[in-house]
Amino acid sequence: MQKEDKNSVGLVETKYYEIKEKIKLENGVDFGPITVAYETYGNLNEEKNNVILLIHALTGDAHAAGYHSKEDAHAGWWDELVGPEKAFDTNKYFVICTNIFGGCSGTTGPSSINPETNKPYGLSFPVFTIEDTVKVQKALLDSFGITKLYSVAGGSMGGMEAMQFAISYPDYVKSVILTATTSRLSPQGIAFNAVGRNSIISDPAWNNGNYYEAEEKPNRGLSNARMIGHITYLCEDAMYNKFGRRLQDKDHYDFNFDIDFQVESYLQHQGQIFVDRFDANSYLYITKAVDYFDLSTKYGSLQNAFSKTKAKFLITSFSSDWLFPPKHSKEIVKTLMHLGREVSYCEIDSPCGHDAFLLEYEKQSKVIKSFLTNIKGVQNEQ
Amino acid sequence: MQKEDKNSVGLVETKYYEIKEKIKLENGVDFGPITVAYETYGNLNEEKNNVILLIHALTGDAHAAGYHSKEDAHAGWWDELVGPEKAFDTNKYFVICTNIFGGCSGTTGPSSINPETNKPYGLSFPVFTIEDTVKVQKALLDSFGITKLYSVAGGSMGGMEAMQFAISYPDYVKSVILTATTSRLSPQGIAFNAVGRNSIISDPAWNNGNYYEAEEKPNRGLSNARMIGHITYLCEDAMYNKFGRRLQDKDHYDFNFDIDFQVESYLQHQGQIFVDRFDANSYLYITKAVDYFDLSTKYGSLQNAFSKTKAKFLITSFSSDWLFPPKHSKEIVKTLMHLGREVSYCEIDSPCGHDAFLLEYEKQSKVIKSFLTNIKGVQNEQ
Repeated sequence: MQKEDKNSVGLVETKYYEIKEKIKLENGVDFGPITVAYETYGNLNEEKNNVILLIHALTGDAHAAGYHSKEDAHAGWWDELVGPEKAFDTNKYFVICTNIFGGCSGTTGPSSINPETNKPYGLSFPVFTIEDTVKVQKALLDSFGITKLYSVAGGSMGGMEAMQFAISYPDYVKSVILTATTSRLSPQGIAFNAVGRNSIISDPAWNNGNYYEAEEKPNRGLSNARMIGHITYLCEDAMYNKFGRRLQDKDHYDFNFDIDFQVESYLQHQGQIFVDRFDANSYLYITKAVDYFDLSTKYGSLQNAFSKTKAKFLITSFSSDWLFPPKHSKEIVKTLMHLGREVSYCEIDSPCGHDAFLLEYEKQSKVIKSFLTNIKGVQNEQ
Repeated sequence: MQKEDKNSVGLVETKYYEIKEKIKLENGVDFGPITVAYETYGNLNEEKNNVILLIHALTGDAHAAGYHSKEDAHAGWWDELVGPEKAFDTNKYFVICTNIFGGCSGTTGPSSINPETNKPYGLSFPVFTIEDTVKVQKALLDSFGITKLYSVAGGSMGGMEAMQFAISYPDYVKSVILTATTSRLSPQGIAFNAVGRNSIISDPAWNNGNYYEAEEKPNRGLSNARMIGHITYLCEDAMYNKFGRRLQDKDHYDFNFDIDFQVESYLQHQGQIFVDRFDANSYLYITKAVDYFDLSTKYGSLQNAFSKTKAKFLITSFSSDWLFPPKHSKEIVKTLMHLGREVSYCEIDSPCGHDAFLLEYEKQSKVIKSFLTNIKGVQNEQ
């Protein structure tokens, strides 16, 4: 933790809420109870109308800002944007972030204990959708007595959830902030996810999802899946800038199968540290939810999907993002404009690929701050 | 085999030549003997000056054209371009194609028997480079008494070898045809190869390369590596055109981890059929050779690399190829022009991604035919 950072939310802790009622999932299953891990930053005002829900990306968690201890070297995943006087200004707003349903950082997921069997769910956990993850977040918000969100914001998969939130609960959402996202995963995105999952499922230690009590975990498969993911989060230019063809701790090729290049070393490191914080089954479930996300098919057309939304939108994309490229954002913008919704769009020029939404803070900060300040003029102001 | 195709080379067979002398590899090892699997199409003329060497891509083989039997359903990998009156006109030219050194389709590789141990080489096979693979092909050509190539042509990795051939043996090469290739693999390309190799090495059945006598082969790892490869051979638009988000044999999501989408099915099928024809260790070695390919670093600069070449060049790239994108080809073109070499460049507009060099035959055929016809006017004509 950095000392004397006046713009930090400081020490925070993850809290837990249990949804006792079963929730009807999109696959027809009634599922519960569900524990939701969440963090909050700032204060809920008396009118409970200053609430912003932040939603994390594929492998994120509820820890969006601040530090868990004084020794904590890393702040939350969007710390640069959340804090006093930051874009999501905690002097004004009450910011909530939850760990996704099906995840492995405190919210009920396949690694959680099934109270009916006293064993981890494993593959008996239901396959869920982005809509389901939003239902779970809504139940948490209800428990606070919150009746309307000032804003819901998310990047990448978090953006899918934010969109779905505005569609599922049109009267509940004043504004939506979408960053580096899409209204439907591309076939290429599905392909990368499929190979990642195949990598896990092919690992004998995966054992059909039953590995929680085993000595060996499917770490090799999960690590490989993460390496594939990381290639898609960067882009060729970002890789050139970051690694080039530079060798790792050597001047000449080794002529063996050890790591030769820095880019290999980076990916292997990312794979290795990932297995310590993520569950292989959660990776399967969450990527499947992302694959299934397709607003056009679900609602007949993208226009139909957004037809009942009442929120004001801010949509941001990054020029070098080839996983969720700007044209996907522009399609959403066009649809919303066609429907007469208020929508601001910003394509940020960045060489960082999809990862830009976790790196390009200066530009994001400005547009988000300005957007949030102007929400009050929105047509559905109550 | 299709009947009455006047433009087919018809029935062909793979032949084998043994290089008895050891060859000095780039890593310092003297290696031999080496068996080279090769095919030829057309007739070697008396002057032996009508020879074209074709070089296959990553997982190709010596079977570039024609059929191995009357029942053979599939022709060789560049059959559309090789045959009587085709681009590589076998009425005029004597076309040779070899299986790469280190491969698994007849040429000595890690799956071959080491005569000193009577066991497969496995990881005792030397790590080699693109330059080494070219030396092996040169030795075969020498055995024919060929003193000069009319042309050397290759796509993708084959293009790397063709370039290296012109650089290693500047007086031996009249012309070079490069298709969808690069003078150095990009960090992104290295990254994809690294993950593919990691997938194989992580498969317990790989067993440090000793699996030839085992019941279980590292098929899961190899299959996964192939799936990753196939994503890079297509492109997002090609995937949209080919698969969209269409489901495979179903109308609704299954809510399980079986295959849902056509693109998943395609990749899995490609992975599964690959393991029947390819050796996991060969995949490791050949991708490593590709990773190591970097003419600028090897020769100090790209200009230095090409400074001694005397050949005329035809370079073709494809607009949607993101693995070996047009800008990589253009860099080679610029360098050759700066050196005063004769060079023709053609960027073919195609939605097929890197795979285009195995699909876009009409356009390729025209430019190759015209280029070959005009070789005789080249400055280094003897």
